[in-house]
Amino acid sequence: MNNKAIIQAMKQRVYEANLALPKLGLVKLTWGNVSEINRSLGIIVIKPSGVKYQEMTKEQMVVTDLKGQLLETNALKPSSDLPTHLYLYQKMPEIGAIAHTHSLNSVTWAQAGRALPPYGTTHADAFYGAVPCTRALSESEIKENYEEETGKVIVETFHEQELDPLAVPGVLVYGHGPFTWGMTPEKAVENSLILDEICSMARLTEIINPDVEPIDHFLLDKHYLRKHGISAYYGQ
Amino acid sequence: MNNKAIIQAMKQRVYEANLALPKLGLVKLTWGNVSEINRSLGIIVIKPSGVKYQEMTKEQMVVTDLKGQLLETNALKPSSDLPTHLYLYQKMPEIGAIAHTHSLNSVTWAQAGRALPPYGTTHADAFYGAVPCTRALSESEIKENYEEETGKVIVETFHEQELDPLAVPGVLVYGHGPFTWGMTPEKAVENSLILDEICSMARLTEIINPDVEPIDHFLLDKHYLRKHGISAYYGQ
Amino acid sequence: MNNKAIIQAMKQRVYEANLALPKLGLVKLTWGNVSEINRSLGIIVIKPSGVKYQEMTKEQMVVTDLKGQLLETNALKPSSDLPTHLYLYQKMPEIGAIAHTHSLNSVTWAQAGRALPPYGTTHADAFYGAVPCTRALSESEIKENYEEETGKVIVETFHEQELDPLAVPGVLVYGHGPFTWGMTPEKAVENSLILDEICSMARLTEIINPDVEPIDHFLLDKHYLRKHGISAYYGQ
Amino acid sequence: MNNKAIIQAMKQRVYEANLALPKLGLVKLTWGNVSEINRSLGIIVIKPSGVKYQEMTKEQMVVTDLKGQLLETNALKPSSDLPTHLYLYQKMPEIGAIAHTHSLNSVTWAQAGRALPPYGTTHADAFYGAVPCTRALSESEIKENYEEETGKVIVETFHEQELDPLAVPGVLVYGHGPFTWGMTPEKAVENSLILDEICSMARLTEIINPDVEPIDHFLLDKHYLRKHGISAYYGQ
Repeated sequence: MNNKAIIQAMKQRVYEANLALPKLGLVKLTWGNVSEINRSLGIIVIKPSGVKYQEMTKEQMVVTDLKGQLLETNALKPSSDLPTHLYLYQKMPEIGAIAHTHSLNSVTWAQAGRALPPYGTTHADAFYGAVPCTRALSESEIKENYEEETGKVIVETFHEQELDPLAVPGVLVYGHGPFTWGMTPEKAVENSLILDEICSMARLTEIINPDVEPIDHFLLDKHYLRKHGISAYYGQ
Repeated sequence: MNNKAIIQAMKQRVYEANLALPKLGLVKLTWGNVSEINRSLGIIVIKPSGVKYQEMTKEQMVVTDLKGQLLETNALKPSSDLPTHLYLYQKMPEIGAIAHTHSLNSVTWAQAGRALPPYGTTHADAFYGAVPCTRALSESEIKENYEEETGKVIVETFHEQELDPLAVPGVLVYGHGPFTWGMTPEKAVENSLILDEICSMARLTEIINPDVEPIDHFLLDKHYLRKHGISAYYGQ
Repeated sequence: MNNKAIIQAMKQRVYEANLALPKLGLVKLTWGNVSEINRSLGIIVIKPSGVKYQEMTKEQMVVTDLKGQLLETNALKPSSDLPTHLYLYQKMPEIGAIAHTHSLNSVTWAQAGRALPPYGTTHADAFYGAVPCTRALSESEIKENYEEETGKVIVETFHEQELDPLAVPGVLVYGHGPFTWGMTPEKAVENSLILDEICSMARLTEIINPDVEPIDHFLLDKHYLRKHGISAYYGQ
Repeated sequence: MNNKAIIQAMKQRVYEANLALPKLGLVKLTWGNVSEINRSLGIIVIKPSGVKYQEMTKEQMVVTDLKGQLLETNALKPSSDLPTHLYLYQKMPEIGAIAHTHSLNSVTWAQAGRALPPYGTTHADAFYGAVPCTRALSESEIKENYEEETGKVIVETFHEQELDPLAVPGVLVYGHGPFTWGMTPEKAVENSLILDEICSMARLTEIINPDVEPIDHFLLDKHYLRKHGISAYYGQ
């Protein structure tokens, strides 16, 4: 495949992944975006800013270099969250795609400022431990390069807690909402869906039993490792 | 466009905005209404009273002057909330359209009698600070000109709290429900949708963290001002 | 219209009202039933017992006399709740149709054993005061004529609390669920929908403000009476 | 019907029952599976592992013997939960089909580690008493034969509490989620739907009344026995 065909295929995947967000109930209005990186070509494809999902076309997906410079003429403005995506791609070389939403259940844990505890196997199947919540950004971080600082505080959180971005493929940004990632746009969106569902499950679990504790580490291991890594035996 | 064409276009927009309410899950039965004002012509178009959404036609939209007098022969009765709309249009010269619903999450904050605190960026993107809740109306206010008094207590609330109706495009009426507004019927409905969603988010956030505090004012500023005003950089 | 045509029209209305229950999200599986009475003919039409909504036909609607005796040959068995309907029709001569569901929000107030307080105007628009919850039935009441005793405890509740069945068109049966009624099957179902919605609103309102009080009686009066009775001014 | 036709009919029922899970909102992604046993032929048919519902075909349903050995060439891998199903079929000779989901409301009770109390007649219509929650599995149980141990702890729970699997056709597995069963795949899925609904009802009931008690045993008897057993009078 030549570069042009590669970019068209990226646009198609990014377009479909963005459309999946409202279809899955993860975004209302224009509250979300998905991007994909091609590291060998040094390009990123991302949703345009503020365009309605029902009017969006594949061709409108925005192509930039790794610094966010537009690579096509007559391009629309990229999502205002692009600098967050750029920083994550730079510091997490394992990941291939990122999704950001304002989905109800994930946002509420982010607003509550709490990491999401692993209360069951639904969580353990996709996230290998608690999903962290970042600290609040300072006034200067918000006033200067806010979107890039959002990326920085995510990376800081993973660094301080010694987390593997592939084992914990998402984060809650304090007062804001979730970012998730994966090898492909489809997988990044799937992780957004799972994160929202386990955020809902965790809130309801605490209502039913306010003294609930996270599951045992060996149950967490079992479920995560039967789906991921060299000993996985789930799926075809 | 001549006046007749202007009125037809208003009817079309008001009709579509009213139909959007049940489609977005914001009203059941006949529990909502949207209106639009044309200040240069001195006319208002509003939903007829008690007509089912699935049977409603564009032609049934009711045209009145700024005092609520019907301007077309054989017109249906306007929404019983018309006097509230009239008073808001009179005292809020910046706004062009109003939406009223009994949407679940907004109503519950109104019934709880609490202003909606800004707990995250989803709120800050559309409402520049807490969404106020009015005081309860007195017995005499309810018995005499109830619907107009509803408009008055909204304006009183914005006046006492020194709020800008364009920066805080909605209100919770104590024991009743939300009114939102905007430059267009579409935007007024969009603000109803956002208000309902952030009402849901706020309730769930308080469940997850009963000690949650509103977000920092500089995060509120950042998100509101990246979408609104002369420094906005969101969207195309 | 001759009697046969009257009965066919009743079957059609009862059929459509029963189908509306799953469509409105008020019943799953076969958990609900609607009936209509024609007092001058002395007949009742009700859903058959345990028939799936997607397979039900208009012809299967069951016609009985006022004691529940089948009036057509080859009729299906009527809903097992028929004796409850019969007793309500006997003691509430004002009503023309009854709906029973296991809708989520209404059931939870019935299971909680609490009357539903009027916390807002959505409630007041349709129910003129709290919606009562019956006492628990005794062991002998449950063992003997359970379904008729359910009707009796509803009537007992309305009698003891001096409630007007047309002003409060529904009830919560302790540990069981809601019964609602109206002049027509369509209206009985509409009252089921409203009751479920205000049950949801009331629960969420108490979560947001545990100290919430019912609305003032004059606001209750205003909203109920602008929609009902000789001074009503809502609708066409 | 010859054996081939019997197996094709089983595949069809298992396929349809698996498809019903996402349609009923009981599973997202690939989080669920349904199986059926034919005890005279000594075979089981179950969903393949990790296959997306929208891409799944009837032919992909996996046929095994009672020890889980594949009986068809070119078969896909069976659901990783197959050993749980096998153990349940072995120890519960009354049942003909099993369904497993990660449905929201059932999972949250399982994560909370609480048996589901019978708070109303919706529960009593299908489950004759509390739905039990298993103890947590030990580290060695999880590390060795995890899926079979899941079956064992379910059977242990029913044995210790002296429960009849046909009277209580489901269980909550601690930290994981629900398994339900019935005579047919359709009925096993129906019991998953009911269990999820009564889990939701119970949580909301406790919110509305934290002091709620289970319903009286004679009301439980009445509702269960009017739908089940020789004195049943519900349905046609």
